[in-house]
Amino acid sequence: MSIAIDTIQEAYRRISRYIVQTPLLRLPNLDAFFGCRVYVKAECMQTTGAFKLRGALNRILSIPPEELENGVVCASSGNHGRAVAYCAKQLGISATVVMPETAPAVKKENIRALGAEVVLCDASERFEIAGKICAERGATMIPPYNDEAVMAGQGTVGLEIIGQCPEIDMVIVPVSGGGLLGGVSTAIKALSPDVKVFGAEPSALPRYSESLAAGRPVTVERHVSVADALVSDTPGSVCFPQVRDHADGVVPVDDEYLLRAMKLLLLEGKILAEPSSCIGAGAVLQGKIDVSPDTGVCFLLSGGNVGPEQLDILK
Amino acid sequence: MSIAIDTIQEAYRRISRYIVQTPLLRLPNLDAFFGCRVYVKAECMQTTGAFKLRGALNRILSIPPEELENGVVCASSGNHGRAVAYCAKQLGISATVVMPETAPAVKKENIRALGAEVVLCDASERFEIAGKICAERGATMIPPYNDEAVMAGQGTVGLEIIGQCPEIDMVIVPVSGGGLLGGVSTAIKALSPDVKVFGAEPSALPRYSESLAAGRPVTVERHVSVADALVSDTPGSVCFPQVRDHADGVVPVDDEYLLRAMKLLLLEGKILAEPSSCIGAGAVLQGKIDVSPDTGVCFLLSGGNVGPEQLDILK
Repeated sequence: MSIAIDTIQEAYRRISRYIVQTPLLRLPNLDAFFGCRVYVKAECMQTTGAFKLRGALNRILSIPPEELENGVVCASSGNHGRAVAYCAKQLGISATVVMPETAPAVKKENIRALGAEVVLCDASERFEIAGKICAERGATMIPPYNDEAVMAGQGTVGLEIIGQCPEIDMVIVPVSGGGLLGGVSTAIKALSPDVKVFGAEPSALPRYSESLAAGRPVTVERHVSVADALVSDTPGSVCFPQVRDHADGVVPVDDEYLLRAMKLLLLEGKILAEPSSCIGAGAVLQGKIDVSPDTGVCFLLSGGNVGPEQLDILK
Repeated sequence: MSIAIDTIQEAYRRISRYIVQTPLLRLPNLDAFFGCRVYVKAECMQTTGAFKLRGALNRILSIPPEELENGVVCASSGNHGRAVAYCAKQLGISATVVMPETAPAVKKENIRALGAEVVLCDASERFEIAGKICAERGATMIPPYNDEAVMAGQGTVGLEIIGQCPEIDMVIVPVSGGGLLGGVSTAIKALSPDVKVFGAEPSALPRYSESLAAGRPVTVERHVSVADALVSDTPGSVCFPQVRDHADGVVPVDDEYLLRAMKLLLLEGKILAEPSSCIGAGAVLQGKIDVSPDTGVCFLLSGGNVGPEQLDILK
């Protein structure tokens, strides 16, 4: 129940011709605001607008063709659903995406535009409802994070970061269930053990901070945060040991700092990232992770699916 | 009264340690919208938020120290003023920027924040007022475009484009007085004569379209457009022959298409560029420049100075 660097490298060979190698940018105009040398891995520029394509592709490309015919189903706050819908369209199969009613309109529309069926529900029921639909149709469930193939696919972002920018000292990764942080921390520690890898999660849903302190996955009370892509109330059971063994820690971040970071990334850095993906930059603004002017810090901007109406939150 | 590639290369040696080599990005998610392979030269990520720093630096670094002591003055719609104010602050001299009252608030604030004096006036009077202030104080005027040293500095963007991305077929450049297009077209045609270089200007102020047709600089009637950085009503006399001899043409673009391009660049490309700098992408959307799916087109995004209140124009 754990993955190593070779699984991630194999995933990269499987998915690389379907994805964009997103740019890793040095943004010196942000240094003064964050107190460090700022880099961003612009995964917001990935096809489907988020890193989720990597994990979904690696999982779906591993399914035998005869099983794929019955289609795929997933539960998602939006970005994983768009990735699954995109893969299904490429392969000519059907996709059903179970989403929280509270997901941003732009995320629902983007999924429907790819021809997938969207089923809306309360965030807490999304996995149960997706499971029922799967059973009814004989379709394959594509988990958003709690799966080795998915986590290995997300880990390919870490391979690219080290390949594109060997001079960084630290990577900060947004966290929900832990698939991205589990994969990325595994890849980076295998290739460059001295690079620090931190996770950042909403202080309204500190599932990893509390679980790491407890030494086991715990479930936290549901509270709403502006980070609409980071809604898990508990670490994935497959992801938790991977994060515990490879990441240097996970810090909770308040919405206020996340939004301040999003505004700086947009107005000073000229990069549009969705609120959830700015949480790593928010962690530094809030003083949750120590940096110095010499520290090369890479913020993993995990997604960019923002509707024009959401830009009002920056005012 | 003309510059060649060696002048631009000399400018690059002079200014390169003060500027950012801005990224040249391949943005495949935009291909379907524009009907070509989309690249952007993200000069919106330049220090001071625009290419104007290059020309101002090259001009100011050529002034003898004893002359510099009396400070510098410029007329600007905003971006050149911010560049001059930044250079002055670095060198510890005073700067005065004469700006149109209609310039966006964010541009005025950014200049004042650098310690420069801002004088507001009608756009048509800005050069006259700047000239008077210069004469009164014995200060040096830093022209925004109609100057060989300034144009050579702007041309360094062209050197970088060819160095960063030899596989492009076309570059489209925003045009006002013509300093950027004059410099960039000179650099690109010297290094890669097969690459096409077009200018794009507001159809409300078609000073280059009309002047190129007439074979000499003509002055057009002043009309307002959303391209607040492209307000010249006539080509610069130094720039015009440079553009005529090196560029492949200049096309007029309607505000509607420019705004549509800005929205696509932001929401699909994840890059924030100011309205004026999106006019080249608008030219392709409006069908003013022929492209095909195989054409590699680089949009020169000349600036990124946008205030949060200006994002409402995208709704």
